[in-house]
Amino acid sequence: MKLSRVVVSAPGKIILHGEHAVVYGKAAIAVSIGLRTTVVLQRHKNESKVSLLLKDLDYILTWDLTDIQKILVAVPQVSRTDTVLPSDEMLSLIDKLIDSSKFVEVEGVKDAARVFLFLMTSTLRDRDRLPAIEVEVKTALPLGAGLGSSAAYSISLAAAMLLSMQTIPLPKYVKKTPESETTAKDTDSYQYDDIETESLRLVCQWAFEAEKIMHGQPSGIDNSIATYGGALLFQNGEITHLESMPLLSILLIDTQIPRSTRVMVAGVRDRYIEFPTVYMSLFEAVDGICHECIKIFSKIHNLKNEDVPKSEFVRYYQRLESLVDVNQQLLSLFGVSHPSLDSLCHMTSKYGLHTKLTGAGGGGCAITLIPPGTDKDKVAELMNKLQKEFKYKVWQTPLGSRGVIVHEAIPVDRS
Amino acid sequence: MKLSRVVVSAPGKIILHGEHAVVYGKAAIAVSIGLRTTVVLQRHKNESKVSLLLKDLDYILTWDLTDIQKILVAVPQVSRTDTVLPSDEMLSLIDKLIDSSKFVEVEGVKDAARVFLFLMTSTLRDRDRLPAIEVEVKTALPLGAGLGSSAAYSISLAAAMLLSMQTIPLPKYVKKTPESETTAKDTDSYQYDDIETESLRLVCQWAFEAEKIMHGQPSGIDNSIATYGGALLFQNGEITHLESMPLLSILLIDTQIPRSTRVMVAGVRDRYIEFPTVYMSLFEAVDGICHECIKIFSKIHNLKNEDVPKSEFVRYYQRLESLVDVNQQLLSLFGVSHPSLDSLCHMTSKYGLHTKLTGAGGGGCAITLIPPGTDKDKVAELMNKLQKEFKYKVWQTPLGSRGVIVHEAIPVDRS
Repeated sequence: MKLSRVVVSAPGKIILHGEHAVVYGKAAIAVSIGLRTTVVLQRHKNESKVSLLLKDLDYILTWDLTDIQKILVAVPQVSRTDTVLPSDEMLSLIDKLIDSSKFVEVEGVKDAARVFLFLMTSTLRDRDRLPAIEVEVKTALPLGAGLGSSAAYSISLAAAMLLSMQTIPLPKYVKKTPESETTAKDTDSYQYDDIETESLRLVCQWAFEAEKIMHGQPSGIDNSIATYGGALLFQNGEITHLESMPLLSILLIDTQIPRSTRVMVAGVRDRYIEFPTVYMSLFEAVDGICHECIKIFSKIHNLKNEDVPKSEFVRYYQRLESLVDVNQQLLSLFGVSHPSLDSLCHMTSKYGLHTKLTGAGGGGCAITLIPPGTDKDKVAELMNKLQKEFKYKVWQTPLGSRGVIVHEAIPVDRS
Repeated sequence: MKLSRVVVSAPGKIILHGEHAVVYGKAAIAVSIGLRTTVVLQRHKNESKVSLLLKDLDYILTWDLTDIQKILVAVPQVSRTDTVLPSDEMLSLIDKLIDSSKFVEVEGVKDAARVFLFLMTSTLRDRDRLPAIEVEVKTALPLGAGLGSSAAYSISLAAAMLLSMQTIPLPKYVKKTPESETTAKDTDSYQYDDIETESLRLVCQWAFEAEKIMHGQPSGIDNSIATYGGALLFQNGEITHLESMPLLSILLIDTQIPRSTRVMVAGVRDRYIEFPTVYMSLFEAVDGICHECIKIFSKIHNLKNEDVPKSEFVRYYQRLESLVDVNQQLLSLFGVSHPSLDSLCHMTSKYGLHTKLTGAGGGGCAITLIPPGTDKDKVAELMNKLQKEFKYKVWQTPLGSRGVIVHEAIPVDRS
């Protein structure tokens, strides 16, 4: 290890448009949000131990380093620019170690441990040795809510490990520009610049392999957003980064109504099978919504530096709101809304705001667009109402936040 | 005139699916209903007078026969199988006569008079003479509600006139079959058979010319349904008669909320212009609904004579109901629903029934499917509620009723 301590974070994501239709080969737009997962990787005080502190799950997992080193027999040595496909033998050794640790069967803990052990044994190897480390994970993201919390975890974990070994170079420490996004922790006037593109590609790939362990066949959306931030268009397995994400914030509302993505997707499929031509056209309409949305994004982007009247901006944001309404109505038509989501849309409309469910639907999360210039008091009142009266979790967060970023990095010789 | 008295009726229609999308070249299904317009054409008691009794408008228009005969200079003689395109001269003579009659400007009265004078001078001519006639018009259809009342008027008027001159032959007087549709007036065990196809074609064409006088560019849907009854598919100006309309009745609900078709169509166009790809896909979905509906019609039709379990019929009717729901949601998405229509749909759903607006929307009429086997008491309770609590006009009527039919015909020599 070349760093004795490194702090990295990566953002979660929302689906702005295209949930469900994406299953039928149509476009979807995913956008990063300000809610992030932070990983602190440092040397363990006990040189024979490895600990994973899952703060939000209130779990501390500790292993003997020697036990983890036993997995290395099944881990291929790779070059600094490659990733490892975990072999069955490797996964089975990892699982054996986890099972022998007698973890309580808490959803997420086992998955987090598997990803951790996979990434640690693959990326922190120095010949036949692994370092004694302590990794602390904290997230602002609700877990299992379709907001990409697991990708944010895998990405920040992979980035921290690759940085600590200097498999990827530490970005420059630069003076903040006035436009720099600030997070609670970045109170300095300096910050780490973006990780260079080639390194990001490697981080993304490692996390994608890790995501496979958790999700079987991930789409690649979540790890891409957690890596690069911003917005992306996903269609037929192909990911295109959108360059012109405009200034936009949302209310992210977690109704906490439990729902199953699998059941929701199956319900839409039933409808599609009953009336294929009807539903394929409706999916096509969702595809149209995505492309209209992208067009408006780049129009706002192109206007930005021009001397245009405010009313023109307002008009474009209104069009974004119209698309949100149409998409919500279509999702309702797909049978994936929920009475609570319907009344949420209705309620926010009384505040002149536009809301749609995001993700699988049937409960879960919704987003309310907050265009620039929206009355702050009105937003605060709405947030308060949602939290107090409805017991929903609500965050106001920008869209298109930075991808994975380094917050701290302390070289070994300075520790 | 070969008949001294002839009584003819023609049905109104509803749009089952496809309103608004039809404007963009997509399919629409129109179906005849049991509400009819009846025309009684007979000799006038005063041989120098012509009277048009518009019972529902509470208007009696009377002209001197000699005044009407003056129009004949502008009316071309046509063969028995042709129609007349009204020339500007002819229309201007008709309008002059109407204006000199000093009718109060009641909506519909002037149009009814124009159509009457156009058809009379064109079809009742015998060399340079016209007969002194009295025509009484009564309808069960609400006027100007998008239910084809004007086409039912033109068709029954044209048929009565062409029959009275024996330009088209009187159909046979035949014994009723058990399946014969009975109307209040047909209490006999005999009835007139359908008018022969070639004659229907001529009636339809005359009425179409008359409709042009009223509506400028009629689609041809209303006069086709009023002529042939049953159901038709309309797409890009082409009309296909559907052979397999299943047994189905509806509640026809007139909310009497005033709306303008022009404004509704313009509103949809605004949305289409804003997001063309989105809305064209939605119109395409409506097209899909029409074609899925037709498939289900022919499946029910094909099952009819087979020994199939009742549950299979039920299943097909449920699918028809699903299409009604999807279409209503799309119409709502087009912005042509109305809070009253929304709550009407919601209310009927509590009775297990499925409702959509029909026609232009924004008020006007809605239809609720009443599949075979629906509990009669439930339907009666709902109808009562709609009439008493909401002051809506409600009719239960079969779909796919007969087209234009003859009820009575008394030859001159028997009068």
